[in-house]
Amino acid sequence: MPQRKSYVIAFQGEVGAFSHAAALKFLGEGIHLLPCSSFEAVFKAIRDGNASCAVIPIENTLHGSIHENYDHLLNYDFLISGETSIRISHQLIALPGVSFRDLKKVYSHPVALNQCKRFFERHPSLTAEPFYDTAGSVKALKELKLSDAGAIASATAAETYGCRILRRNIEDSKENFTRFFLLTKQPFRIAAAAGDYKTSIVFTTSNTPGALFRALACFALRDVSLTKIESRPFRGKPWEYLFYVDFLGNIDEQIPLNALANLKECTDFVKILGSYRPTL
Amino acid sequence: MPQRKSYVIAFQGEVGAFSHAAALKFLGEGIHLLPCSSFEAVFKAIRDGNASCAVIPIENTLHGSIHENYDHLLNYDFLISGETSIRISHQLIALPGVSFRDLKKVYSHPVALNQCKRFFERHPSLTAEPFYDTAGSVKALKELKLSDAGAIASATAAETYGCRILRRNIEDSKENFTRFFLLTKQPFRIAAAAGDYKTSIVFTTSNTPGALFRALACFALRDVSLTKIESRPFRGKPWEYLFYVDFLGNIDEQIPLNALANLKECTDFVKILGSYRPTL
Repeated sequence: MPQRKSYVIAFQGEVGAFSHAAALKFLGEGIHLLPCSSFEAVFKAIRDGNASCAVIPIENTLHGSIHENYDHLLNYDFLISGETSIRISHQLIALPGVSFRDLKKVYSHPVALNQCKRFFERHPSLTAEPFYDTAGSVKALKELKLSDAGAIASATAAETYGCRILRRNIEDSKENFTRFFLLTKQPFRIAAAAGDYKTSIVFTTSNTPGALFRALACFALRDVSLTKIESRPFRGKPWEYLFYVDFLGNIDEQIPLNALANLKECTDFVKILGSYRPTL
Repeated sequence: MPQRKSYVIAFQGEVGAFSHAAALKFLGEGIHLLPCSSFEAVFKAIRDGNASCAVIPIENTLHGSIHENYDHLLNYDFLISGETSIRISHQLIALPGVSFRDLKKVYSHPVALNQCKRFFERHPSLTAEPFYDTAGSVKALKELKLSDAGAIASATAAETYGCRILRRNIEDSKENFTRFFLLTKQPFRIAAAAGDYKTSIVFTTSNTPGALFRALACFALRDVSLTKIESRPFRGKPWEYLFYVDFLGNIDEQIPLNALANLKECTDFVKILGSYRPTL
């Protein structure tokens, strides 16, 4: 990637989205943002050179994996160069000068509205209004100068659009985290990363009894810990699967290398998606 | 379940949906249908006694698992009593008397429209119009007496609403299958089922290195074949997972029983979702 001042980071959503917050965590303030309308557009932005890297959500502790992004990781050739997780805490946001009493409607993405059910139960005078994006709903307050409406989005969104937070952390569950990947074209070291390395791979097994067990044995017999396994359908081969596995270890170390060499012996296809350290 | 003539089958979607076609495959013509607006409503319909059984889609060979239904299988206590798969072939449907030349718009669910991209490329004069449901779009043709519009849905939908199929099998991929489960409150034998038994279970492992490997060893060491593994987030325990596994064998046989007893020794929680034979 080019020098830091010119990083262009592609992500899905509007400026102020949780992916934007993750981008700040990975690379700090000196970044340029490229908001995209879909995950596929994010991957195309790096491929076509319009962005130097991308931030994508990969899993959420309430809703599970973002499977579309697993599929893109296979189909595009980018490296996972970093991971971080962000607690999804929702803020009730309004224009400066608007008070809680003024609110009649509250706009946000349906998933965010659904994650603040108890807030709406406690405040039956407020109507939840579905909108296409969390940060986009804050942007809309501003553009339409709405004085009787609020929005639910991240603190980053409130700051981005110069709005005020009227109620903090109104989400039902405090155990709602999203894990994000930083994707790059070339190997890249994040200054803020620390802790143990993880490696992400994807492989297919032959469709024979015990094939997945033998694949996992390559890791277990060497005491390499798996932290996640995810299966996806193998397109064009009905009822066969791709397996995405994360394990602790760096692809530069001997034991993980041996495990992968062993895995290649007993599977049809292995692709390494990247080794990276978490940004805390 | 009560005697056959009074089977009430809950499913998501309008009459004529692919789930309706699966219900016919499971139980034949003598059934009553209870169309529901959401998957959760389907599960509630059996729970509350409004339906005697339910048909739910569980995975698709292009799009992967229907994760919401995996979550419901854990949270509700119903048995999987049957499985079948249906090839998703899309038909261009119009009212009787309407010809292909008359069509300007074609309505369907966005996923179905997206699965017929090549058809729309070959016929640029037709506009794809997103609608909430495939079978629902055929129902709308009929209710609104549309003579310049078609709909994309199943052959079952064309028959249900007395409409004509103008172009058959316009889907891009011939390898698009959806697997369905029949759910019941009590054990139930499907007359048309045949072939090898499968059993579906869900379990959690302790969060220790090699835990999943040891769990899978319970099956592999007894030559019990896994046909699917799916992970879902464990709500309330961030970054821990539930594993849904399908294996070949009947829960009434000794070897699968031994495998499950072994699994209970090395995991924190095991729930059996059902043993069933495919309906071909």
